[in-house]
Amino acid sequence: MWIRASCFLEFDNPVATPFLFMLRPRSGWQQWVGREEYVLNPTVPAAEFTDPFGNLCQRLVAPQGHFSLHTSVDVECADASDVAPGAPFIEVQFLPDDTLPFLLPSRFCESDRFSQMAASISAGWAPGYDQCTAIVDYIRQTIRYTPGSGFDNASACEVNERSEAVCRDMAHLGIACCRALSIPARMVVGYLENLQPMDLHAWFEAYVGGRWYTFDPTQSNLQGGRVAIAYGRDAADVAIYTQFGDPVSLLSMNVTVNRMQAPN
Amino acid sequence: MWIRASCFLEFDNPVATPFLFMLRPRSGWQQWVGREEYVLNPTVPAAEFTDPFGNLCQRLVAPQGHFSLHTSVDVECADASDVAPGAPFIEVQFLPDDTLPFLLPSRFCESDRFSQMAASISAGWAPGYDQCTAIVDYIRQTIRYTPGSGFDNASACEVNERSEAVCRDMAHLGIACCRALSIPARMVVGYLENLQPMDLHAWFEAYVGGRWYTFDPTQSNLQGGRVAIAYGRDAADVAIYTQFGDPVSLLSMNVTVNRMQAPN
Amino acid sequence: MWIRASCFLEFDNPVATPFLFMLRPRSGWQQWVGREEYVLNPTVPAAEFTDPFGNLCQRLVAPQGHFSLHTSVDVECADASDVAPGAPFIEVQFLPDDTLPFLLPSRFCESDRFSQMAASISAGWAPGYDQCTAIVDYIRQTIRYTPGSGFDNASACEVNERSEAVCRDMAHLGIACCRALSIPARMVVGYLENLQPMDLHAWFEAYVGGRWYTFDPTQSNLQGGRVAIAYGRDAADVAIYTQFGDPVSLLSMNVTVNRMQAPN
Amino acid sequence: MWIRASCFLEFDNPVATPFLFMLRPRSGWQQWVGREEYVLNPTVPAAEFTDPFGNLCQRLVAPQGHFSLHTSVDVECADASDVAPGAPFIEVQFLPDDTLPFLLPSRFCESDRFSQMAASISAGWAPGYDQCTAIVDYIRQTIRYTPGSGFDNASACEVNERSEAVCRDMAHLGIACCRALSIPARMVVGYLENLQPMDLHAWFEAYVGGRWYTFDPTQSNLQGGRVAIAYGRDAADVAIYTQFGDPVSLLSMNVTVNRMQAPN
Repeated sequence: MWIRASCFLEFDNPVATPFLFMLRPRSGWQQWVGREEYVLNPTVPAAEFTDPFGNLCQRLVAPQGHFSLHTSVDVECADASDVAPGAPFIEVQFLPDDTLPFLLPSRFCESDRFSQMAASISAGWAPGYDQCTAIVDYIRQTIRYTPGSGFDNASACEVNERSEAVCRDMAHLGIACCRALSIPARMVVGYLENLQPMDLHAWFEAYVGGRWYTFDPTQSNLQGGRVAIAYGRDAADVAIYTQFGDPVSLLSMNVTVNRMQAPN
Repeated sequence: MWIRASCFLEFDNPVATPFLFMLRPRSGWQQWVGREEYVLNPTVPAAEFTDPFGNLCQRLVAPQGHFSLHTSVDVECADASDVAPGAPFIEVQFLPDDTLPFLLPSRFCESDRFSQMAASISAGWAPGYDQCTAIVDYIRQTIRYTPGSGFDNASACEVNERSEAVCRDMAHLGIACCRALSIPARMVVGYLENLQPMDLHAWFEAYVGGRWYTFDPTQSNLQGGRVAIAYGRDAADVAIYTQFGDPVSLLSMNVTVNRMQAPN
Repeated sequence: MWIRASCFLEFDNPVATPFLFMLRPRSGWQQWVGREEYVLNPTVPAAEFTDPFGNLCQRLVAPQGHFSLHTSVDVECADASDVAPGAPFIEVQFLPDDTLPFLLPSRFCESDRFSQMAASISAGWAPGYDQCTAIVDYIRQTIRYTPGSGFDNASACEVNERSEAVCRDMAHLGIACCRALSIPARMVVGYLENLQPMDLHAWFEAYVGGRWYTFDPTQSNLQGGRVAIAYGRDAADVAIYTQFGDPVSLLSMNVTVNRMQAPN
Repeated sequence: MWIRASCFLEFDNPVATPFLFMLRPRSGWQQWVGREEYVLNPTVPAAEFTDPFGNLCQRLVAPQGHFSLHTSVDVECADASDVAPGAPFIEVQFLPDDTLPFLLPSRFCESDRFSQMAASISAGWAPGYDQCTAIVDYIRQTIRYTPGSGFDNASACEVNERSEAVCRDMAHLGIACCRALSIPARMVVGYLENLQPMDLHAWFEAYVGGRWYTFDPTQSNLQGGRVAIAYGRDAADVAIYTQFGDPVSLLSMNVTVNRMQAPN
């Protein structure tokens, strides 16, 4: 299917402020960018680089006062996310080199502290995809997805003590548990069709059966219509904006995701 | 300035044919992509990867029969290319690691065979930028820029025996001579405002005085309005399309480059 | 000076166990590897790859039972670590791309929670190197370096509530504070001559004044004789060994670091 | 098997001269470095970096006068090189991204000029491994391996007109023909047990049947005991030394390769 997605961000900066943005989705696996737009207002010099995870990052110094950014993208993406019950656990010695960093603990996914919990949740399930499913089911059963509740950069350990959380929190918990089972897991931030309420979304991918599969603890049915904006170990790597220096005000943020006709 | 550039390619393929394209300019040094479009007709699955030089490359299998591709981009680029007479030669031991591959000979730039010629041309000039200028002047004086004359994948050695050449040939000769003087030099393929006749263009960059500078043997005045599409050692690395298997027919190719109002 | 350093690790594995090791120092900035040895006992197939930080990592499956590994290296390294009081803070917009990941929070360095503390500690100091010095001095004054006290993978937030810590804990706290001031900071694990008691060591580097400088919160005088084994965001990235699956026993670990004659 | 290999190079430099060396084999696929030594005489500051192909490269400025370099390595490598008659051609669209650069023409492998010849040689053979074998057989039948005959940096086109050649020439011709058939092919420089006369050796690898396989046009039986030192597109990428500035004298070069007992 074809998706047109957009993100509008509006800031009020007390002083000129350096920013990093990740708002340029790349074509890749099951995702083709057919059109893309990135408008800064006012226009300021900006540069771009590729981070260690392959994400395109934009660097700029936003001026004092009002600054906005509007990005829009037309993407062909999969109608449905692949599922693979029974896909086997890949022994660590057979994992591709580039999946190994996703076994390590990270800022918001202290996987080194989830060994017992992950073993307990996944007990009785076949190693691999089915363990991941068991983890996602557990998260859904114990934590209520509550958009707007994620106000304080909680890590997986902290999320685990709560009864409600936002998408990124639930993804962090899923990632931490997968890694604790020696299953590589990575964070994805992106757009999702029909998300209620509409916003940027976060989910995760786990490497089982020889490839990455999508898992989304906030969705009872794993739907398609996903546009990945950035990949990383956790939210620290894939913040759509990182701001340096004194805090600025995010005046507004608006996200739209709509199905569109195929171009041409 | 803001430039809107487009490239239209139309093929007739006797059989389904794998292609590599390099037609997605990236934001980078003195270049910001504000809008971008990439349309395949008919639509076929396509993937993208980053090559060792940082270029975005698109992979697809074009169907049998008629296939076209239309790309368009709005870019903010420099009004004028920087010049730096007197910028010094950087001793090899002080060159950044990532410039070193651009000292080695490559398919179309047999720099290992240009030591004497490069020394002769640049004799009497200050090591660095001024040597590059002497090389470019020499090329302009001995070879006439003749769009349409480049029919056969000539290498720098072969170009050197001719009296007329196309932009890529002249860039290859410049690169070969620079490298023969231990000056890193790389090929750029891109768009240039006001090129006559309008087409894709090729020029080169040399690393002197601690950064890359633009040199264009086909232009007596080094103008701005340049949009880099891809960087590489020579034309083998930066072909805008590479086709595998039996030859296909390129039915038409059309390039436009126009100045535009700044968006927003 | 020339240093001969060695590390011996001896495990008892209840079952065959996959391991990642980082015990192959690379030649690099102010560090030249003249001889190197890496012995596995028993010999098992092993592979090597380069991680996203440029470290050489060794992968293998250690057999059930007793397994040992002995690495040894002769390195020419700096007699003294460079110091640069007054070296300026580099504004984020002027930082090299590859330093930016070292501004982000990581598993053991929750820099997002150290803004106030870092501002308070460094108040009154010139932005840059002198702020780093103030942070290191603060750590030394408030936390006693106590080899052997680091039993539980403490993060910077947890370390900050203690009165004693090991080298990696103190490095984590320093890194977290630097990043909170928008100064890139990274972890180094390595060998240090004359460390008491002898062991592997951890310190950190901060990017100020246009390059990385060494800081070591455990050493009142910043001595030379350092051999970097691995670089990363924090201890999660640079564990000299990471073991997957059921826990194994580390029977013994022995580190030696001695000055040696220059090999001819 | 375990191999102890060494390379000794001795130069006389009219002036201080910058060099790049590639003489540090890495552990990798079917190759484990157990001990390694790298001695400069006189000792000069040296640095190391990883080139785009993953090779470790050493940079230094050799002093005026006599300069020598002695490297030695103990490596566990395969007893026999894998062979796979019948391994299929991989369609370009299914090749891994990182094999694609090895389809392009390069300095010494003008594959763009070998379409007809490669098609002719391989006519009647199954696409893939068997085509590569046909190419290697053709080279062996038409060109006599003549150590010492390779005095002038011949490219595949030039080699093709000769009746005798050295190992690198024959590898270049094999690579050019494979690429002309859309089979990725890359150059390997390394050590080979029992080579007569003993010297550094060059062979090539082709990507068929989903992995890289070894081909050696100079060896009628493909033996094991190979230690890869560097990989690249052709000899321009994998020169064991590249020297900049005025020519220097290579006074002597000595290579030894011997089977050894497994350490420990």
